[in-house]
Amino acid sequence: MTAEQALGQGGEFDAIRELVARWGSRASGIGDDAAVFRLSRGDAVVASVDTAVEGVHFRRDWLSAREIGYRAVVAALSDLAAMAARPAGILVAITLPASLRESLIEIGDGIGEAVDLVGTQILGGNLSNGAELSLSTTVFGSAFAPLARAGARPGDTIYVTGVLGGPAEAIRRLLRTESAGEYRERLVRPVPRLAEARWLADRGAAAVIDVSDGLIGDAGHLAAASAVCIALDSAAVPRMRGIDVQDAMNGGEEYELIVSSSVAFDVRAFAERFGLALTPIGRVIDGVPGTVQIDGSRVVRPAGYDHFSRR
Amino acid sequence: MTAEQALGQGGEFDAIRELVARWGSRASGIGDDAAVFRLSRGDAVVASVDTAVEGVHFRRDWLSAREIGYRAVVAALSDLAAMAARPAGILVAITLPASLRESLIEIGDGIGEAVDLVGTQILGGNLSNGAELSLSTTVFGSAFAPLARAGARPGDTIYVTGVLGGPAEAIRRLLRTESAGEYRERLVRPVPRLAEARWLADRGAAAVIDVSDGLIGDAGHLAAASAVCIALDSAAVPRMRGIDVQDAMNGGEEYELIVSSSVAFDVRAFAERFGLALTPIGRVIDGVPGTVQIDGSRVVRPAGYDHFSRR
Repeated sequence: MTAEQALGQGGEFDAIRELVARWGSRASGIGDDAAVFRLSRGDAVVASVDTAVEGVHFRRDWLSAREIGYRAVVAALSDLAAMAARPAGILVAITLPASLRESLIEIGDGIGEAVDLVGTQILGGNLSNGAELSLSTTVFGSAFAPLARAGARPGDTIYVTGVLGGPAEAIRRLLRTESAGEYRERLVRPVPRLAEARWLADRGAAAVIDVSDGLIGDAGHLAAASAVCIALDSAAVPRMRGIDVQDAMNGGEEYELIVSSSVAFDVRAFAERFGLALTPIGRVIDGVPGTVQIDGSRVVRPAGYDHFSRR
Repeated sequence: MTAEQALGQGGEFDAIRELVARWGSRASGIGDDAAVFRLSRGDAVVASVDTAVEGVHFRRDWLSAREIGYRAVVAALSDLAAMAARPAGILVAITLPASLRESLIEIGDGIGEAVDLVGTQILGGNLSNGAELSLSTTVFGSAFAPLARAGARPGDTIYVTGVLGGPAEAIRRLLRTESAGEYRERLVRPVPRLAEARWLADRGAAAVIDVSDGLIGDAGHLAAASAVCIALDSAAVPRMRGIDVQDAMNGGEEYELIVSSSVAFDVRAFAERFGLALTPIGRVIDGVPGTVQIDGSRVVRPAGYDHFSRR
């Protein structure tokens, strides 16, 4: 009944030892029945879990094992960015079919790469046998005043980081078995906007959400949580070359941030600091709560749903 | 590529809404991109993740959906007990085949039951589609001075809580398609010894581990982490009626605690407080580090392995 019996004690032992050795100092926190970490006095713990399942969240014919590990961790870290939290560490629960045993180290390397990118560490985890490849990543962070979705107020400006449309276009091309070309990088190597979120929070951001369901869908979640209407200007939406505006506003898996703020941000300072665009794309108005207007007329009540969130 | 596209937005929305409504005040912490909680000043955060996969960690013909949810959470909570931590909350990541959609509420009821039992709450989670049923439970706790496995010293007495052998005997009978009888309850309704661990820690326990791989295996993990030898007296091992001593010492999934202490515990006060046996079963000696002796002669170097743990 235990994983040890299923995988064979030696096999699992070796696999975990190999992973931990490979992670080196990135996994220095691993040990005991549970991980232990401390926060600065007064900080709250911020935590989230995200699962990536083969065939549902990724396809092995599109991504390397390393990219699968990297993306699973980034998707989870992006939820910390949406709270403007500093990462404190991650736990990785990997379920692995025996046939993919030889991919484990590559998956681990991708996990290590994501952890390095944001300067955090692997605090522990779990390795199980199973019929399908699945990664559940728990991320922990800390924040003195975590930002939520509920802070947007009429009169705020809505900003978005980065340029949109790349991941959706990459998926569309891959579905047609074409090369994803210049769009592939945005799909396989998203960046969690952690430092960007803290920069924005420090300068007065009122509410933040990350773009996982698409700009319109996630703007709708922000609008619903804040009980406001968000009016977007489609022409202002920054998009990759060759992407039309509808696709830029509907594509998911971006991991960029939508930010609501009553304070005007210095977008040039942001661009200089992060090498990334910060673009005003609309404003918060006193319309039907939980809705999104586009170009002043169309009213959209988003149907997208973000896991386990309050409405 | 997202769970929304895979499950259908309406379906996932409804499923999560149903679960959260069912959990009521147990899930009052759910919301936003990540969960937020605060600790008492000076406390450390203690965190662990455990995955239960159908066919590896449980069988649906042996357990009800409610029991599957309950056991998955208890197995994770037991790691907090092994650190003598107070639970602060859990995150539940559920991967569910479409064919089991109607079992989700029952699974959720089992999760709620485990949460109620220890007085904690559901802080958030994730619901994904997938080919096999799988639950990854992340547990958070807090402790001023988390207990670890590394504190056992020569001269300590080794104690174990409860009576052993029930879960292994239940599995053996179920494998023969017999009724598990009086042993079934110990398999399907294990209890995480959280309050017991804190009682023991408050009275001077030096090291604790929970019995998931079996008494000998987990005593070996404790011995290895503490670089000591543990000598067990097989006749002293408390076991259920009808269980032989070898089975009591080798069966896993107990979620009882092995405790090392230089202070003698008042086992009668423990029994009165918790309605549970606390039994001295051996001592820590200056033998080969990381080994277990049974009845003074046999030396066992355990092969069991606990997920992602330091050796």
